[in-house]
Amino acid sequence: MEIARPYLIFLGDVHDALAAKTGLGIVDWRRDWCVGQLRLPGCNADAGLPDLTLAEATAAGAKTLVIGVVNPGGLLPDHWVATIVAAIAAGMDVASGLHMRLGDVPEIRAAADAAGAKLFDVRHADRRFATGKGTKRSGLRLLTVGTDCSIGKKYTALALEAEMRARGMDADFRATGQTGILISGRGVAIDAVVADFISGAAEWLTPDAAPGHWDVVEGQGSLFHPSFAGVTLGLLHGSQPDAFVVCHEPTRTTMRNVAHPLPTIADVIDLTIACGRLTNPAIRCIGIAVNTAALDETEARAVLAATADEYGLPASDPVRFGVGPLVDRLAAEFPA
Amino acid sequence: MEIARPYLIFLGDVHDALAAKTGLGIVDWRRDWCVGQLRLPGCNADAGLPDLTLAEATAAGAKTLVIGVVNPGGLLPDHWVATIVAAIAAGMDVASGLHMRLGDVPEIRAAADAAGAKLFDVRHADRRFATGKGTKRSGLRLLTVGTDCSIGKKYTALALEAEMRARGMDADFRATGQTGILISGRGVAIDAVVADFISGAAEWLTPDAAPGHWDVVEGQGSLFHPSFAGVTLGLLHGSQPDAFVVCHEPTRTTMRNVAHPLPTIADVIDLTIACGRLTNPAIRCIGIAVNTAALDETEARAVLAATADEYGLPASDPVRFGVGPLVDRLAAEFPA
Repeated sequence: MEIARPYLIFLGDVHDALAAKTGLGIVDWRRDWCVGQLRLPGCNADAGLPDLTLAEATAAGAKTLVIGVVNPGGLLPDHWVATIVAAIAAGMDVASGLHMRLGDVPEIRAAADAAGAKLFDVRHADRRFATGKGTKRSGLRLLTVGTDCSIGKKYTALALEAEMRARGMDADFRATGQTGILISGRGVAIDAVVADFISGAAEWLTPDAAPGHWDVVEGQGSLFHPSFAGVTLGLLHGSQPDAFVVCHEPTRTTMRNVAHPLPTIADVIDLTIACGRLTNPAIRCIGIAVNTAALDETEARAVLAATADEYGLPASDPVRFGVGPLVDRLAAEFPA
Repeated sequence: MEIARPYLIFLGDVHDALAAKTGLGIVDWRRDWCVGQLRLPGCNADAGLPDLTLAEATAAGAKTLVIGVVNPGGLLPDHWVATIVAAIAAGMDVASGLHMRLGDVPEIRAAADAAGAKLFDVRHADRRFATGKGTKRSGLRLLTVGTDCSIGKKYTALALEAEMRARGMDADFRATGQTGILISGRGVAIDAVVADFISGAAEWLTPDAAPGHWDVVEGQGSLFHPSFAGVTLGLLHGSQPDAFVVCHEPTRTTMRNVAHPLPTIADVIDLTIACGRLTNPAIRCIGIAVNTAALDETEARAVLAATADEYGLPASDPVRFGVGPLVDRLAAEFPA
């Protein structure tokens, strides 16, 4: 799956920016992939892109209409269908991270068949994978792991890729979730794979590579989350990371959507190494990414200093202070 | 999914007993559920049941034709279709553990629609599950885990159920694989569930129960198998076992289909407790099931004695010597 660029970001008529977070995330990380945005009357979100008609977007070279919207049920509103059909008729592919499949809407299916357009339902991993083999591959891999779900693993991986590239390192973000796939144009929604193939899908995502090349793999879930730890473990085994970064949010007390307390950073480091050494005996933690959004700057700096001191590892907030200290450590531990 | 009984076991024209192992397994454990077998000319397998025509089977009350066959590609041979269609026309449902879906064969689909028959593709978990919640449920649960795949976890669970029931304990085998589902008439092929729902499916399989009731859950994979550990971990978290039994084969040196060495029994006990306590802090190992088929009886007894001594736990070969010592320990640790 490789989604053609540039994108036209479709925001529909969503009520607020939160509902457009997929589109806003794409623009945050891949502004130069986006020729513009398409909004319907009443839309309250703005990705900061030029508002284009379909004709203007086509003239500007848009290859794919990206549905940059999330909603609780994952459904595509009926009154968006006409716009999507018109985009297909204008020559574009369509990509969506909604749960509902684009091709399940008869008008969209018919338009795509007629135009030879591709429909990308990135939340669904339709590709068939082999089972994981656990064999060591060439190249280097970094995985972001977490004390919980929704704690900054994708953001941290994207920030690491950007910083590593800025320093001339050979690094590619590897997406394992729907938003990440739209941001990188490829990947696999690992939590949508059939259970037998989790590690196999992760192996497919991070194949043999040049000796100095880094796959920077977006983590999912947590080994300590009772809903999703199986996904996390299969991703850990399949991506066989040389290095990992622990993502944490210091004010959160229970794990997302369940009653379980958050594990400590030490718990996560220990269990990640205990399990990860099955497919990479040299696995090691190279830093800690702390989401300090709930703290003022003085508190944030104090938490980061205390965390770095406690674990003997660089600790930073990727959003607030960047990931420079983490990449310093990575470069020192894995000299070119 | 509840498969109606009694069964007529269909063995097709398979070349040997190994190809009929699903059917033979059903007869081993549920002889009284089977009214007979149906074989085509050239069949070299024999489940030891009366050979019945479809008319005889219907007269004997057969409710479901069970395809008791496995084959590498999971395909249904074309020349079996007429027999399956005739069974449906005679009033039976059909159950299959093949990878290929019964309903994907147009003649079978049409016959089932016409007759209102149910088609059970037990290898596919079509039901939708919730994500796991990790909340403690009432009742008691035992899970079989292993140092590898295909090492006796299903057999051990079925033997435990039989021994526990013989002693008047309230115990139900809970199937997590295709053969186990056909043996128990219900269950979920946990490795065929979408990755996000592994633990949720295990929670569905082992719901709240009476305080003294045991779910005896068929384990899958191994926490140390690089292909399938994600499935194993989700099943562990979702089934939240109070007790577990480690299954082991002492002459095996590498894990099934991969190059990795087998972990030790101690490795498996330690990691199962480290991970399992997330959803059941009281999780404990109550015994070790050793497959001694490759050893003579003197060697087998020596290995079992040494294993019991090393771990301070009962060790037995369920096939050769039964699971009495394991149930003794279980009853002692969990008095009624």
